[in-house]
Amino acid sequence: MKPYKLAAKEDKKHNTIISISTDTGKVMIGQGYHVLIAGPCAVESADDFLQLALFLKEEGAHILRGGLFKPRTSPYSFRGLGMEGLDIMLEARRITGLPIISEIMDYRDIELMYDAIDILQVGSRNMQNYSLLDELGKLKKPVLLKRGFSATIEEWLLAAEYILDGGNNEVILCERGIRTFETYTRNTVDIGGVALVKHLSHLPVLVDPSHGTGRWELVTPVAKAAIAAGADGVMVEVHQEPDKALSDGRQSLNKDNFKLLSRSLRELALLENRIV
Amino acid sequence: MKPYKLAAKEDKKHNTIISISTDTGKVMIGQGYHVLIAGPCAVESADDFLQLALFLKEEGAHILRGGLFKPRTSPYSFRGLGMEGLDIMLEARRITGLPIISEIMDYRDIELMYDAIDILQVGSRNMQNYSLLDELGKLKKPVLLKRGFSATIEEWLLAAEYILDGGNNEVILCERGIRTFETYTRNTVDIGGVALVKHLSHLPVLVDPSHGTGRWELVTPVAKAAIAAGADGVMVEVHQEPDKALSDGRQSLNKDNFKLLSRSLRELALLENRIV
Amino acid sequence: MKPYKLAAKEDKKHNTIISISTDTGKVMIGQGYHVLIAGPCAVESADDFLQLALFLKEEGAHILRGGLFKPRTSPYSFRGLGMEGLDIMLEARRITGLPIISEIMDYRDIELMYDAIDILQVGSRNMQNYSLLDELGKLKKPVLLKRGFSATIEEWLLAAEYILDGGNNEVILCERGIRTFETYTRNTVDIGGVALVKHLSHLPVLVDPSHGTGRWELVTPVAKAAIAAGADGVMVEVHQEPDKALSDGRQSLNKDNFKLLSRSLRELALLENRIV
Amino acid sequence: MKPYKLAAKEDKKHNTIISISTDTGKVMIGQGYHVLIAGPCAVESADDFLQLALFLKEEGAHILRGGLFKPRTSPYSFRGLGMEGLDIMLEARRITGLPIISEIMDYRDIELMYDAIDILQVGSRNMQNYSLLDELGKLKKPVLLKRGFSATIEEWLLAAEYILDGGNNEVILCERGIRTFETYTRNTVDIGGVALVKHLSHLPVLVDPSHGTGRWELVTPVAKAAIAAGADGVMVEVHQEPDKALSDGRQSLNKDNFKLLSRSLRELALLENRIV
Repeated sequence: MKPYKLAAKEDKKHNTIISISTDTGKVMIGQGYHVLIAGPCAVESADDFLQLALFLKEEGAHILRGGLFKPRTSPYSFRGLGMEGLDIMLEARRITGLPIISEIMDYRDIELMYDAIDILQVGSRNMQNYSLLDELGKLKKPVLLKRGFSATIEEWLLAAEYILDGGNNEVILCERGIRTFETYTRNTVDIGGVALVKHLSHLPVLVDPSHGTGRWELVTPVAKAAIAAGADGVMVEVHQEPDKALSDGRQSLNKDNFKLLSRSLRELALLENRIV
Repeated sequence: MKPYKLAAKEDKKHNTIISISTDTGKVMIGQGYHVLIAGPCAVESADDFLQLALFLKEEGAHILRGGLFKPRTSPYSFRGLGMEGLDIMLEARRITGLPIISEIMDYRDIELMYDAIDILQVGSRNMQNYSLLDELGKLKKPVLLKRGFSATIEEWLLAAEYILDGGNNEVILCERGIRTFETYTRNTVDIGGVALVKHLSHLPVLVDPSHGTGRWELVTPVAKAAIAAGADGVMVEVHQEPDKALSDGRQSLNKDNFKLLSRSLRELALLENRIV
Repeated sequence: MKPYKLAAKEDKKHNTIISISTDTGKVMIGQGYHVLIAGPCAVESADDFLQLALFLKEEGAHILRGGLFKPRTSPYSFRGLGMEGLDIMLEARRITGLPIISEIMDYRDIELMYDAIDILQVGSRNMQNYSLLDELGKLKKPVLLKRGFSATIEEWLLAAEYILDGGNNEVILCERGIRTFETYTRNTVDIGGVALVKHLSHLPVLVDPSHGTGRWELVTPVAKAAIAAGADGVMVEVHQEPDKALSDGRQSLNKDNFKLLSRSLRELALLENRIV
Repeated sequence: MKPYKLAAKEDKKHNTIISISTDTGKVMIGQGYHVLIAGPCAVESADDFLQLALFLKEEGAHILRGGLFKPRTSPYSFRGLGMEGLDIMLEARRITGLPIISEIMDYRDIELMYDAIDILQVGSRNMQNYSLLDELGKLKKPVLLKRGFSATIEEWLLAAEYILDGGNNEVILCERGIRTFETYTRNTVDIGGVALVKHLSHLPVLVDPSHGTGRWELVTPVAKAAIAAGADGVMVEVHQEPDKALSDGRQSLNKDNFKLLSRSLRELALLENRIV
């Protein structure tokens, strides 16, 4: 038996499909569906976020992303608007009807975020923050668990196991690139790992090609690769003016490129018989 | 200016397309074409190789691969049939009309291999064997240059530069997975690197998902990912009875799975507007 | 200027020396001193821990280590005695007069651990748990910050910067091996990194050769290498019966080997003009 | 049984000691001896090399190094003086009485180098160049085999096995740093690997801290660490004017620092009961 007994496919006849209700319907995440999550790295201002949200909705995004708390390597970098940004995200959800996802770094924020956010994201640096995983395991709320940037597949599935073992079975895995010796790209998307995790586990698996490559011109090819390899969807960073982004501008798509991405992925997902 | 001035895209208006003539036509490798190279890791016996070659031809392979000299980590492992296998490959070329590719490890073999082999392959361990690269640079013969398993993209392009600078401009790049901390897969296919090299260089770029993953069940998803990310084709290992292969059986497709792979790639390549 | 402005050597004329008072004197950590921290991976029982503590004291250990909360990759592994074990550690401190160090994984434990523990340790997996670092920055208590197993030196110093920037300037760095492709050892001790961090920063730098190698027979040679390279001390795991340890037995020294280690290090430290 | 049966310690009662005769005596390499190899990265001019050689001899070097053929990542970099430099090295050997070591990249050079060079070095990039290893296995001449920059310890010992299996049992292993994610240093010296290889094999093991760190200020601490961890000696790059070196100036010691290094290592080797 695998050490990750709840995450392993062998114990489930069916793949886990996560359904998120919205005012206008449902978004499904998992085997057989295609999901596209998009938004800026960080929520920076109300006007920009709302305008962008409407655009993303129109162009085919299923879920809105936006960072409130940004884990930053340096204490002197912009660390996000925090709870101030939450109202902006809620307004975006109201006007677009799209579910929202944001990163949680500290379990003290669960109380405030629980009602507002549809999917709580655990970032790469916190994949083995077991106190946080233990608390998320107690919730009834989908959790998107990013792979640690140097976590093996086994460690990643065991981190998911912490949440599942706590009683929360709505875990979404997200590959976001691993750290290697290569320096031309920010990280190395482990595309074989994506195919393998789909093979080993019943959980939905997404890919984040924005962090995974760190270069906007590689986001679309790698997003397409993800869908072709069997990922259940992708999460990408989009910014109205990438050059002016307070974080991660180098890896953000502009609106025109997002439009092209969305269409390419849709075609590919249809070829793969996914519900788009 | 990039340090790899001949390999860089900026110096060429057009992408390099390599054309290989056969009795029955031409095989084209490069931007806009889809190429599928297939065959066993090593040539083991005449009957098996010829039978498999006919099958691969029928199922859509464009080029036959087969190892004559196998670089093996241990001196005690099977090191290939050597020149004995060459007649078998030539016979396979004759009966199928397909071009053949095989690895060259030692420049003393150039004389014998030059007339017989359509594409000379430089393996991952020899990517920085500069004596070999210098000799290959003097030939008029396509060279498939595998990425070193720990080479950066810059080092890979500079290795190509050795061959180009010698006067041979028919270089095909092939990503075959890099070495990382992950142990569930044999190597980690750098799919973002594939997209990046297509962006940086005018040379054709292929992917070898067999060595890239080391697990046959991941070969098809990763091959599809390669095509979706912009690779100009893939090279895969196929064996009639993978369990009995003298090397690399674990990562070889059987015939049924090759058939499925070939069809999936063709569909995908058509969606991407490639000539298949 | 370096991005880690408080951790960088350029801003301090003197190296940081941390002084820990005990009933019987002081333990000094930093440039010019030699410190040896020893104890079992986890506190398992009172009798064993106290007996071992007396032995370690007699054989030259300056500080006692013992895990109360163990971050474990799998939720099903032994996770430590938690606060139950704290009384055992306090008793060991009382009878030996040695300061004690233990890992903190959750800032909710600060209240209970603050008075009892002399040095709070941040484990490798939590090096970028910024919520925890922020809380530790508010304390007046030495913090031993282990390098993340895949953190660059810059990221490590920036993690220290979080604590320093919060107002706590008693940070001790500890290299514990990084993750590489090598599988014969659990991790790869970055000995050049140790020398470099001593060069870049005024903070004390220790090495943990137990986690760093994962094999007890390599602990002494690597500990000696650490001192020779300029580290201010080492932290090692010792167990009375390594074969019966609930965690990390493979990398724990037995008593006889600890005795040899302690003497070798002392000789070496004297050669390097350290106060032992 | 280990896959590297000839390199493994279990098959030899005694460690391999390699003895190199000179006009004035013998240099011994292996367990119980301390050896210091020094010289510039590349032989650049007769005057400089001879002057430096006399200095190195006086300051305790046992063997002179100097590159004739430089494997360079780019075909446009300085690739060494080649055979032109050989006469300079021979003259240095004559006036100092020290044995000389130089890298061989191409087996066609064996004929010319065989009589002149005391130790043939296989560089990191050629560790798995099996054609070269096979040829070196046929000689009666010590071979210093550098670890590939991404080779596992098992692969390294198996590369030695190629030479041993050919009949040449005078193999010296040399750790020169492995490739990791860290960018502050050129490579990461695997100090635990050094201790482990001494444990697994009867062959002499040296360390090259110049390539291992890429920064001259780290050469001495890492060289000391190597000796403390059990290495049988070190090989370092020294240049009269590092700033003007045609290659690797950044990692070369100047004369003053070499003098300090040599003395520190001697003291340390004596503490470790080595014959210096």
